[in-house]
Amino acid sequence: MNEPPFRRVGIYGLGLIGGSIALAVKRRWPRVMVVAIDRPHVIETALRMRIADEVSAEPRAASSCELLVLAAPVLQNVTALGALSPHLVQPILVTDAGSTKRAIVDAAATLPEHIQFVGGHPLAGAATSGLEAARPDLFDDRPWVLTPSERATEAAVDALSQLVVGLRAIPHRMTAADHDRLVAYISHLPQLAVSALMHVVGGHAREEGLALAGRGLRDTTRLASSPAGTWRDIVATNRDNVSAALDDLITALQRLKATAGPCDHELDEVFLSAARWKGVLEHS
Amino acid sequence: MNEPPFRRVGIYGLGLIGGSIALAVKRRWPRVMVVAIDRPHVIETALRMRIADEVSAEPRAASSCELLVLAAPVLQNVTALGALSPHLVQPILVTDAGSTKRAIVDAAATLPEHIQFVGGHPLAGAATSGLEAARPDLFDDRPWVLTPSERATEAAVDALSQLVVGLRAIPHRMTAADHDRLVAYISHLPQLAVSALMHVVGGHAREEGLALAGRGLRDTTRLASSPAGTWRDIVATNRDNVSAALDDLITALQRLKATAGPCDHELDEVFLSAARWKGVLEHS
Repeated sequence: MNEPPFRRVGIYGLGLIGGSIALAVKRRWPRVMVVAIDRPHVIETALRMRIADEVSAEPRAASSCELLVLAAPVLQNVTALGALSPHLVQPILVTDAGSTKRAIVDAAATLPEHIQFVGGHPLAGAATSGLEAARPDLFDDRPWVLTPSERATEAAVDALSQLVVGLRAIPHRMTAADHDRLVAYISHLPQLAVSALMHVVGGHAREEGLALAGRGLRDTTRLASSPAGTWRDIVATNRDNVSAALDDLITALQRLKATAGPCDHELDEVFLSAARWKGVLEHS
Repeated sequence: MNEPPFRRVGIYGLGLIGGSIALAVKRRWPRVMVVAIDRPHVIETALRMRIADEVSAEPRAASSCELLVLAAPVLQNVTALGALSPHLVQPILVTDAGSTKRAIVDAAATLPEHIQFVGGHPLAGAATSGLEAARPDLFDDRPWVLTPSERATEAAVDALSQLVVGLRAIPHRMTAADHDRLVAYISHLPQLAVSALMHVVGGHAREEGLALAGRGLRDTTRLASSPAGTWRDIVATNRDNVSAALDDLITALQRLKATAGPCDHELDEVFLSAARWKGVLEHS
């Protein structure tokens, strides 16, 4: 595994994820050429940070790569796939790093034969977004989902897994459908619940009331400053699963509401179940 | 303020809160006598930890105190007030440290004239409960709500405020009704939402899925191991407000569910409102 799986890697979209992929590739394989593709003001920053070997605002810069990683927000990746594909004239493997998988996998189904596609999702993040927050260790020991399909050979999926391992992440293979269902619960529902909670609590307690809040509310609402834009895309490309997850949460809250009382066992059941799963989460 | 407002303080219920009150009183006024009242095995621990000057399992130990603090869970405090009051034959001020205020304030309304009562709620906590986790600095810079009523003179409320300040907490006066409405939003709703969320996410994702979860879910669900018993009492004594707060959250989640989509502004509104209130919370 000293030989890199790809000698020339293009990265479209230089934010926290794209920038960190560039840094992590260079950390592992200093001689792999990293080509960064983004708007002019972003690639200036990328140049200044020495985050890539080549930078370009032109889609055709991707044509010389063996691997192209789409690292923009979900819907931009879908659009970019269409815009970039006419420039991809040589055999190439394309992957992405978006938070949902079915939309991009569906879009990839119509690509010409010489363009292979494997969906990807590194489950990593940081409190701060943007290229300036990029770091080579962002993916260390984190899961990285790969969604193989008939759009890629087994050899291509293996090469991508090798890259992921080289970035010190842990590849997990699953279908795009299974991925989207799972992240609706472990990622999208918590975000929506926290945003709804902070909106309701703030609206009722106002400035004076929030001043009395303790660490519990502060910790619980860490995600409440997340940007609407990112989440609008995520929800739009995972509506059925998000909707089902929201329904499940609403049902649990209604159960707490209907039965909360001193002689009630439903509150106990929800709390015991929650404490049990929290234990599993903390030890996983 | 070098003179202590009370020379002999009884504490009923030696858990995290009661034990920390004992330690904080002795830190500020080493010569104030602290009398701890609890079940035999708890007062043995209190003795071993040198947390009080006197310990007793007998209710009549409270009779010699100038201040009695009920520091057991909410409903136990209500029961204790009835059980202890026949033993309180001399003038005394009673307060409590429970998480809801209307139930205990209502119970106090029937006390004989020589027993004054002011409700109290230190908004402080720690990850670990129980006497062993008690610490003198638990209340430092934390709010401590006091609910004055016709059951206490202004002088009594002032003396209790002095005690609270001596424990380095910040007294906030409000009615029991206002208190209960506020904590339904800043404390009870976040707890119920987190328990419901962890229950739903764990039940769907199971062990395999939770292994892929990131820091977002972990932080969001820090409260998910909270004990059902404590919260059963809290909910039982604040049902109307908790019910209204749950309704508000359910409405916000239904709004996210009904309108989530790329052309939608409701998701933006909830997220922007949440981010704004999160900013207020972080700077308060």
